Amino acid sequence: MKHIKIIDLLNNTKTLQEVTAKGWVRTFRNNQFIALNDGSTIHNIQCVVDFENTSDDILKRITTGAAICVKGTLVESQGAGQKVEIQVTSLEILGDSDAEKFPMQPKRHSLEFLRENAHLRVRTNVFGAIMRVRSVLSFAVHQYFQQKGFVYVNTPIITGSDAEGAGEMFQVTALPLDGSAPKNEDGSINYKEDFFGKQTNLTVSGQLEGETFAMALGQIYTFGPTFRAENSNTSRHLAEFWMIEPEVAFNDLADNMDLAEDFIKYVIKYAVDNCADDLKFLDERFAQEEKQKPQAERSEMTLLEKLNFVLENNFKRVSYTEAIDILKDSTPNKKKKFQYLIEEWGADLQSEHERFLVEKHFKCPVILFDYPAKIKAFYMRLNEDGKTVRAMDILFPGIGEIVGGSQREERYDVLVEKMKALGIDEEELWWYLDTRRFGSAVHSGFGLGFERLVLFVTGMTNIRDVIPFPRTPQNAEF
Amino acid sequence: MKHIKIIDLLNNTKTLQEVTAKGWVRTFRNNQFIALNDGSTIHNIQCVVDFENTSDDILKRITTGAAICVKGTLVESQGAGQKVEIQVTSLEILGDSDAEKFPMQPKRHSLEFLRENAHLRVRTNVFGAIMRVRSVLSFAVHQYFQQKGFVYVNTPIITGSDAEGAGEMFQVTALPLDGSAPKNEDGSINYKEDFFGKQTNLTVSGQLEGETFAMALGQIYTFGPTFRAENSNTSRHLAEFWMIEPEVAFNDLADNMDLAEDFIKYVIKYAVDNCADDLKFLDERFAQEEKQKPQAERSEMTLLEKLNFVLENNFKRVSYTEAIDILKDSTPNKKKKFQYLIEEWGADLQSEHERFLVEKHFKCPVILFDYPAKIKAFYMRLNEDGKTVRAMDILFPGIGEIVGGSQREERYDVLVEKMKALGIDEEELWWYLDTRRFGSAVHSGFGLGFERLVLFVTGMTNIRDVIPFPRTPQNAEF
Repeated sequence: MKHIKIIDLLNNTKTLQEVTAKGWVRTFRNNQFIALNDGSTIHNIQCVVDFENTSDDILKRITTGAAICVKGTLVESQGAGQKVEIQVTSLEILGDSDAEKFPMQPKRHSLEFLRENAHLRVRTNVFGAIMRVRSVLSFAVHQYFQQKGFVYVNTPIITGSDAEGAGEMFQVTALPLDGSAPKNEDGSINYKEDFFGKQTNLTVSGQLEGETFAMALGQIYTFGPTFRAENSNTSRHLAEFWMIEPEVAFNDLADNMDLAEDFIKYVIKYAVDNCADDLKFLDERFAQEEKQKPQAERSEMTLLEKLNFVLENNFKRVSYTEAIDILKDSTPNKKKKFQYLIEEWGADLQSEHERFLVEKHFKCPVILFDYPAKIKAFYMRLNEDGKTVRAMDILFPGIGEIVGGSQREERYDVLVEKMKALGIDEEELWWYLDTRRFGSAVHSGFGLGFERLVLFVTGMTNIRDVIPFPRTPQNAEF
Repeated sequence: MKHIKIIDLLNNTKTLQEVTAKGWVRTFRNNQFIALNDGSTIHNIQCVVDFENTSDDILKRITTGAAICVKGTLVESQGAGQKVEIQVTSLEILGDSDAEKFPMQPKRHSLEFLRENAHLRVRTNVFGAIMRVRSVLSFAVHQYFQQKGFVYVNTPIITGSDAEGAGEMFQVTALPLDGSAPKNEDGSINYKEDFFGKQTNLTVSGQLEGETFAMALGQIYTFGPTFRAENSNTSRHLAEFWMIEPEVAFNDLADNMDLAEDFIKYVIKYAVDNCADDLKFLDERFAQEEKQKPQAERSEMTLLEKLNFVLENNFKRVSYTEAIDILKDSTPNKKKKFQYLIEEWGADLQSEHERFLVEKHFKCPVILFDYPAKIKAFYMRLNEDGKTVRAMDILFPGIGEIVGGSQREERYDVLVEKMKALGIDEEELWWYLDTRRFGSAVHSGFGLGFERLVLFVTGMTNIRDVIPFPRTPQNAEF
């Protein structure tokens, strides 16, 4: 008899049928009650063992982590906490789990310990929930864009272009590192002998390639891994993370903000609607975590309230210039509590300033726009004032920047001038410039760091806990 | 007035309304008829210009590739080939395209030329169609698995594990290549000083990490980029390609074959149902290409017939042993037409043998299973005969291997013995072995090379033409 997934058993109302279930033992109480989980849901099914008619040898092997197959009758449960349970008629141990050695004991482990056991942590309630929510969120991303007619584009991971300047890059090579790589006469590495015939790196963004596709297909999005070789050992940075980058021909900055806000609300709504059980569990976990904090630092809202707050409120749109005025006049600035004091227009905003705006001042998601050209990337559309660009960042409470985007500079001459001023090689970006040479048009796009979204939706606080196998400085285990 | 996408204009039955459209000029005939495309569909909308009341200066700038905005009345078309057209009342040039310089002329270009212009080729009918079909196929992949409750897992791209042995790997490093990288006393590179504190590579497969998640979440799938540093300059290989790898706890090899066949049929059906216009175009293109071939080499079926054939027929399941018998007795083997003659059981099958089985003998997709252990990977489940493993490959006409999978060796002792025999470091794969130490169970999975699927569905013949920016030896442009 084919086994039935536990999520389907729990939703089953046809009791008194013979069923088979397979899964892993979470707990075994009183030599009688197995809590069995197969990953299909956060809920376990209770399997009641007839211990008087089960050999001691088998009973001893029903340990936390063991894989088992049970056959029995699905009956209404007499106990609290579940509607149905399985009265076991036969039980087979598929794979033992030595109770002394299995690292995932039925107790609370530190997140640090669990990170070191990333291959097993997903067998816990919290990581099972996070990974299911992450999966549903990623599907929501695809569904949102596909329903709107966007074309999914896989921009290259290995890139010969290093001009974007979004961050430090990892080098990709098939050459040896020991000094024996072929060299040019001037002593530099002869990359013509490398696999791709040139120096290559891991991409920091698919935007530039994405733009070329938007200027043909109209609406496109990427969703793939991106990389930063920055030595940032923080709870907000990963060396390898997944990014979503839509790009739309004929969209201006206002359209871009509308798209980003609508998109974020859609995917959060989708998770709220489709991950109710997991989010309920994570909501309770969030509440427990908050209780550990001093009163003053506790969140004013529960996790689910935070999610609904985002869904129900417009993101506050504030120009950089307004934001600077607010920050200059703010108490932490006047009292010199900011590490970086805001003194004049043009200052780059630090995390502390973004958090003040979002968490203290506006108390809602904020879209900052029209930044000084000097602190933003070369490809952003220069405003008529000649000093600001049509950039926008979306800031979220507790997360900081979750989206960075802009209307792109569509004017060939202005773009080339900007590249020259910044020393960006025109020859290398010949293909990017072609989009402005042939049929250029207003277009806009943004990048959303997927893990920051998962962080927000799950209420976790360290980005290493929302990706299966985090890559950070000094860590590429598994 | 907000512009309307061309796909929506063409499907509109409410004529005599004022509309705005934006897009790129494909052709401009008789100073009057613009074929306008915005990438939302393969079809252009005809825009009829009132040339007597339009300045020569504007008319001259309506060139192939130019971006324009037209306003006008949507009317029933008098001409053949379209139901509606736009009677233009005003026309704005958004971005010029110098007719002398724009590489994508309205004529047939060689695929080789188009590859060198991968940033512009997507503005042609054929590449627009391919990229839309690719996008829809990728969504079908996610929808199939999500509907069945699979969890999408992003396995790591940068990996510290090189034990899978699926192919040559690219190295990822932040160290210099010129010989100045820090060294150990024995002269070897001191990778402790590299970004991750160890030697790292680009993944060749997410399977091993995926297995650890399947043993917790039950049903998982990956869909991400994978890499091979193999110097294969063929029409079937890429250095960077996208792979789909489902892994299911409690599935045996028969379940695995069922899943793979059902999955492939679902995604092809989804494309047939949702890409009708693009596939009709590609079907016509395929027919034209076939006409160029000598009669004997032409496909017996049109592209759409090939797709429907896969949907309507069971994949033929044949054991390796049966396949060897068929090949040994085959005419090309007897007449020594095979480059590698099949002499005895145990031989590895080459592309020529796979093609013979699929295209000449069975004339349908074939699933070969139960391969000799010696020619397959260490993690495959050894059969009771002690010499074959529960492997399966799916072979497609014109494509060759599209899926490779297996039931995995779930027995700790057998797996360790196999690793020892092959010199695979147990210490390095401690986490993989943990899945067999704690709650091991029968499980199976497979890998499907996404580009080979796109190749089959679009009827293209070179894998470089079904990925936006192909990476191959000596080529990482863009």
